[in-house]
Amino acid sequence: MGGVSLVFSALPSKIAHEAEAEYAPLGIAVFSNASAYRQETDVPLLLPEVNPDHSTLVHLQRRKRGWSGLIATNPNCTITGLTITLKPLLENFGVRRAFIVSMQAVSGAGYPGVPSMDILGNVVPYIADEEDKMEWEPLKMLGALQDGQIIPAPINISAHANRVPILEGHMLCLSVELAQKANLEEVAQALVGYQAPEISRQLPSTPPAIIRLSQQADRPQPRLDVMSGNGMTTVVGRLRPDPLLHYKMVILSHNTIRGAAGGSIYNAELLLKQGLVG
Amino acid sequence: MGGVSLVFSALPSKIAHEAEAEYAPLGIAVFSNASAYRQETDVPLLLPEVNPDHSTLVHLQRRKRGWSGLIATNPNCTITGLTITLKPLLENFGVRRAFIVSMQAVSGAGYPGVPSMDILGNVVPYIADEEDKMEWEPLKMLGALQDGQIIPAPINISAHANRVPILEGHMLCLSVELAQKANLEEVAQALVGYQAPEISRQLPSTPPAIIRLSQQADRPQPRLDVMSGNGMTTVVGRLRPDPLLHYKMVILSHNTIRGAAGGSIYNAELLLKQGLVG
Amino acid sequence: MGGVSLVFSALPSKIAHEAEAEYAPLGIAVFSNASAYRQETDVPLLLPEVNPDHSTLVHLQRRKRGWSGLIATNPNCTITGLTITLKPLLENFGVRRAFIVSMQAVSGAGYPGVPSMDILGNVVPYIADEEDKMEWEPLKMLGALQDGQIIPAPINISAHANRVPILEGHMLCLSVELAQKANLEEVAQALVGYQAPEISRQLPSTPPAIIRLSQQADRPQPRLDVMSGNGMTTVVGRLRPDPLLHYKMVILSHNTIRGAAGGSIYNAELLLKQGLVG
Amino acid sequence: MGGVSLVFSALPSKIAHEAEAEYAPLGIAVFSNASAYRQETDVPLLLPEVNPDHSTLVHLQRRKRGWSGLIATNPNCTITGLTITLKPLLENFGVRRAFIVSMQAVSGAGYPGVPSMDILGNVVPYIADEEDKMEWEPLKMLGALQDGQIIPAPINISAHANRVPILEGHMLCLSVELAQKANLEEVAQALVGYQAPEISRQLPSTPPAIIRLSQQADRPQPRLDVMSGNGMTTVVGRLRPDPLLHYKMVILSHNTIRGAAGGSIYNAELLLKQGLVG
Repeated sequence: MGGVSLVFSALPSKIAHEAEAEYAPLGIAVFSNASAYRQETDVPLLLPEVNPDHSTLVHLQRRKRGWSGLIATNPNCTITGLTITLKPLLENFGVRRAFIVSMQAVSGAGYPGVPSMDILGNVVPYIADEEDKMEWEPLKMLGALQDGQIIPAPINISAHANRVPILEGHMLCLSVELAQKANLEEVAQALVGYQAPEISRQLPSTPPAIIRLSQQADRPQPRLDVMSGNGMTTVVGRLRPDPLLHYKMVILSHNTIRGAAGGSIYNAELLLKQGLVG
Repeated sequence: MGGVSLVFSALPSKIAHEAEAEYAPLGIAVFSNASAYRQETDVPLLLPEVNPDHSTLVHLQRRKRGWSGLIATNPNCTITGLTITLKPLLENFGVRRAFIVSMQAVSGAGYPGVPSMDILGNVVPYIADEEDKMEWEPLKMLGALQDGQIIPAPINISAHANRVPILEGHMLCLSVELAQKANLEEVAQALVGYQAPEISRQLPSTPPAIIRLSQQADRPQPRLDVMSGNGMTTVVGRLRPDPLLHYKMVILSHNTIRGAAGGSIYNAELLLKQGLVG
Repeated sequence: MGGVSLVFSALPSKIAHEAEAEYAPLGIAVFSNASAYRQETDVPLLLPEVNPDHSTLVHLQRRKRGWSGLIATNPNCTITGLTITLKPLLENFGVRRAFIVSMQAVSGAGYPGVPSMDILGNVVPYIADEEDKMEWEPLKMLGALQDGQIIPAPINISAHANRVPILEGHMLCLSVELAQKANLEEVAQALVGYQAPEISRQLPSTPPAIIRLSQQADRPQPRLDVMSGNGMTTVVGRLRPDPLLHYKMVILSHNTIRGAAGGSIYNAELLLKQGLVG
Repeated sequence: MGGVSLVFSALPSKIAHEAEAEYAPLGIAVFSNASAYRQETDVPLLLPEVNPDHSTLVHLQRRKRGWSGLIATNPNCTITGLTITLKPLLENFGVRRAFIVSMQAVSGAGYPGVPSMDILGNVVPYIADEEDKMEWEPLKMLGALQDGQIIPAPINISAHANRVPILEGHMLCLSVELAQKANLEEVAQALVGYQAPEISRQLPSTPPAIIRLSQQADRPQPRLDVMSGNGMTTVVGRLRPDPLLHYKMVILSHNTIRGAAGGSIYNAELLLKQGLVG
């Protein structure tokens, strides 16, 4: 591949589909925040803390499409924190079902994005196409790579998406059913002790903690916690039993740093380290 | 009972417990918005649209406590809209499980209530004691009255409570599992067609529609819909299938009209009509 | 003129200039909320409570331009309340100088208008071209009509315009220097007692009170007072001495009702009554 | 004085009056953000960038009151930025009159302070006692010290105070009349080039720039600019001619850093350097 040509793409999805496909054949590595290619079976949907091994899909991608460059995508900002939280739960106990409700910042819609007349003093319980992505993207990222193919994780997710009048930070209420019983302490320990796979531990964007577990009754809060780990740490709080599934918790992630541009750069750092770029 | 002495109580719960117990023996009918007596087995927790028959508990209450007056309570503002929505689902299809996440207005905390420094540009994912009430109160109201005793409805509810920077209107995301299969149209019809029990249909506070079902993709919204039916109608929207339980929807209810003072008055109207007061 | 063809125009100024000039020759009366024609010497800039006599400029306008229709304009939303407040002061005491600072709602910018990312938790101390209009338009409206020409009122105005994160209502801080001494009570009486000119007192949109003078220390407030007189009344409060000029006060006016569409309709009602239309 | 006993006081004014008077006789230096002693003729009201020489009032204070400690105060958060801006104008051109309108953050009222129900989506055009302080405190700080007495600067100020729904940052619209003519460039140069008196240039809290002059049409804005110089720099923008006085501009200052605790600490640093403490 031609040197170190990297492109970070945050184009609207329809435009991204064509634009990114023009760059990749030219030997350029496209790290895309757009949704255009996320569902393609030969395009990795990557979080370095979660599935760095999925990046090997780019070999398949190049063979199949005849590209010298590549496209690697990062997921929707809303489920970045969710997927990072589910990963240690999946590894330690298995995860069967997850119920999630998002309260998302206006910056998630880009600029000019949400008109102030729509959101001042208001909540909008709808974001176009968002819930489908929330229910599907985590399954690909948490899936196993077998014979060059990703077998989606068999988790059943139900998502509600809401826009709230805050500037930065996507917050999620999560109720989760594990495959194996685990007590509260074990779950807390799995979250706090989570370490990214070896390859992703020393990247320039790697935060000191992948997950921070807050012990305060009313945290995380977007305004107070969104900049944890320079906006790269996922903050989990209010871990408690759920009367319907097993555990309830609240997840906060920075939507424009960890969930957008910062995520694309983080992926580029990973592929450079893996020797897939450069 | 001494004429038409009515008291509407919105005291903090600990004070309410004593204050209301001083009035009731004096022949005064206390219509309370406080949580102090909601759990007592001889105190009705009432929504005229849902369980007007529960008011007969006051006979038991008077016998047992030797009161000439009475205490009747209305529920927590957050689950008023939920309980009204679950009622027709329960009647038509049965309800097994419900997952709810609230986004609640600051006025729900009274005045001065939530400091602006806490909530401007922020979400607080915690409201003291709220989730317990959300998981328990609907079961009493939706329960059956047998031999002077309420048998709680066997519904399993999981609740997350959040405070958001809006002024009026509590919004809930609901995913619900029915006992019997029903298609989307049947569920919509059950909601739209819901009529209050006969006794409650012509009270002064009865709104034209108990439930309004919005067909717009991004509604209900607190700022636009909270005054439906002068703040007494429950607005449901975004009715759609749920991949985990059966149906997802969004519920909006006015927390200080239908969910507080207006609810206490509505209950007084009911008991007057039932001849239990006056 | 051809019957009762009325057009209410709220086009962007550049488009308005051409579009309105196409309608007027066709015998259509254009009541415009756009700024395109406000400065033309033969186009009335009208507030029925203030200068209904200026509508006679349309005779000149028709002669000069050969139109069978007409264009009549209403002023910028920000100075509607100001001009209405200055009118009784001018009539009773004369007005020499006025210092005004606006705090304007996002709805003043139309839809989609102000991006939420710009204004959530923020103040923007600039609105393009607004201050020029604020310093000039009141002078035309408060001017005297002599021999078919408007002599601008000799008031010196300094304006600062700000956008604040509220939905409806433009608020102004005003310090004013009168031409003649007047005590606080006389000023209050002039404001409260102000009556529109006879011709404008019984129009369909005429509010019960042109000006409401609040006596509460912390009023008017946009959220609490903006709907005074169905959004057609100007609310003045905090009338008090000014150490630099003579009096300080706060003025609130509904920017999208009194200050925009409602103002255009009010003007049409006036011209219908005056026999200039229809 | 007994070593380095410093107390930073941010008590409500009435309590401060007694509490601070108990500490000062004990040899403790009280650096107070409260308004209790600001008007006393022997208590310095200090901004290190503006009037560090006023600290010598503590000699008089100790003699007169028999204290071994001292009280030094910093001004109201709202006029900190104003006084810093007026200083170079006064030095270079003289200042005769100033018209100011504030838009103040909720944090200026402390915690819990402003109830969210009062300010969400609203503006409150009143803050108790604020305008008096705004019209008076700058005169003391900008006054000359003669024979141990401060002669207030002969500037005539008119102030309007408003609370707006933002978290941090007090913004002021200022129109100012100079004593001598100056063109726009000269005024800009006076602001940008302003240097604190020698003694205050290297204190730990001294920011790189005392005043930053923004050239962007729509700045300063609280959310974007309030942290300039770690919250210690005053940001001025929109400098332009005023049709009534001489110049208009917008001033932004961090109310809880430069305008409160940070200001008290800055004053302590000054007195330590001056040898008046320690």
